[in-house]
Amino acid sequence: MDFIGEPLVGKGVVERRFDLKVEDRLVPGIVWTPEAAEGTRPLVLVGHGGSLHKRTEYVLALARRLVRHHGIAAAAIDGPAHGDRPAVGPTTDIRAWWTSTGTDEMVADWSATLAAVQGLPEVGNGPLGYWGLSMGTIFGLPFVASEPRVQVAVLGLMGITGPTADRLAADAAKVTCPVLFLQQLEDELIDRASVLALFDALGTKDKRLHANPGPHSAVPPEQFVVSQEFLASHLLG
Amino acid sequence: MDFIGEPLVGKGVVERRFDLKVEDRLVPGIVWTPEAAEGTRPLVLVGHGGSLHKRTEYVLALARRLVRHHGIAAAAIDGPAHGDRPAVGPTTDIRAWWTSTGTDEMVADWSATLAAVQGLPEVGNGPLGYWGLSMGTIFGLPFVASEPRVQVAVLGLMGITGPTADRLAADAAKVTCPVLFLQQLEDELIDRASVLALFDALGTKDKRLHANPGPHSAVPPEQFVVSQEFLASHLLG
Repeated sequence: MDFIGEPLVGKGVVERRFDLKVEDRLVPGIVWTPEAAEGTRPLVLVGHGGSLHKRTEYVLALARRLVRHHGIAAAAIDGPAHGDRPAVGPTTDIRAWWTSTGTDEMVADWSATLAAVQGLPEVGNGPLGYWGLSMGTIFGLPFVASEPRVQVAVLGLMGITGPTADRLAADAAKVTCPVLFLQQLEDELIDRASVLALFDALGTKDKRLHANPGPHSAVPPEQFVVSQEFLASHLLG
Repeated sequence: MDFIGEPLVGKGVVERRFDLKVEDRLVPGIVWTPEAAEGTRPLVLVGHGGSLHKRTEYVLALARRLVRHHGIAAAAIDGPAHGDRPAVGPTTDIRAWWTSTGTDEMVADWSATLAAVQGLPEVGNGPLGYWGLSMGTIFGLPFVASEPRVQVAVLGLMGITGPTADRLAADAAKVTCPVLFLQQLEDELIDRASVLALFDALGTKDKRLHANPGPHSAVPPEQFVVSQEFLASHLLG
């Protein structure tokens, strides 16, 4: 884990950019922790949506609120071919990243990120949560399914659809932690039946669906607050 | 509007029991307002669920929070054959109250209650909201459909089902205000398809569905907080 440049410090939040070597990939990430933090605390891994990056507005806002309001650490990494990763055509071309190999690699990248971030003494092996919608669910749901230490997850804007539909359905059954699942009622990318099918496929009984008005990218601001409180209530006990 | 007994005053909330004559019926109600309130304020009408009454725990809690946290007035009335109304067999016998006539009468009772409560100088003709689940939707949805002054509503635990299914479907189309609709994923009384059908039938585009784990009566406590904030955000502007 190589820290890049100087930490950004503001309003009690320390933001550190890092690169992590995973297999033959250099994974660009950010970790947010409270200023002068000491000792073990909960951690939330935050997955961004397609065509965005690890410091996109809503990721940054959620990470900062988790740190400031709850003392919870947060970390984000760029998705495949996104952000500071090597480009593979335009990031809006889903064929460049929505693949079975891309999923396996991203799960490995999250696992390595988890180990590296929890290796920081001011994070440690505390309770673990995951937040990620759309592409953040395409890769995050398989990660949550693979990682029994994840105690709570916010997922959504996705269905049993696309190039990894079968993988998503199979991995959903392995998700056993409490889940908040978000849906947009006028989602122009993901049809409603496939969203409900993915929600229904989640293995956990402790799941709730919030379906909101508007298109794919119009998740209402209050749902980020709801997300934050849902994560905190499970991670802080 | 005849006030019954002395007001209950506690923690800044004044609770007044009233009876209201509507056609040949004596409608028992309660109005909650802030202590020493003066002038116009928003009002939320709260409809209770079947077999319960106007002062059942969650109605009382919601009313008190609306008053204390937001300065919003609240009012509740007993449903037909419920609470202080004349009994018609056990209140758990839905045939006693789930009828087309019962719906018409309850809509008239709510309309008269609205006029009486808004006639109080400490309430006045302010913004209006409605909250009611299950039986509170069976009667409340037709009331909301009939009353264009309702600016926001929380409905749910109901589908296009039962003795007034056609009425609910037709009235849903007339609901044009923002709606939060609550669903229980293991609802043993109302099947999921009928819930989604009623949600879909709502005429407003500004609607969101929160589907939570558990049976009919297990609405999670945080959804009452979400309800309160949803109502307040729309009524206080």
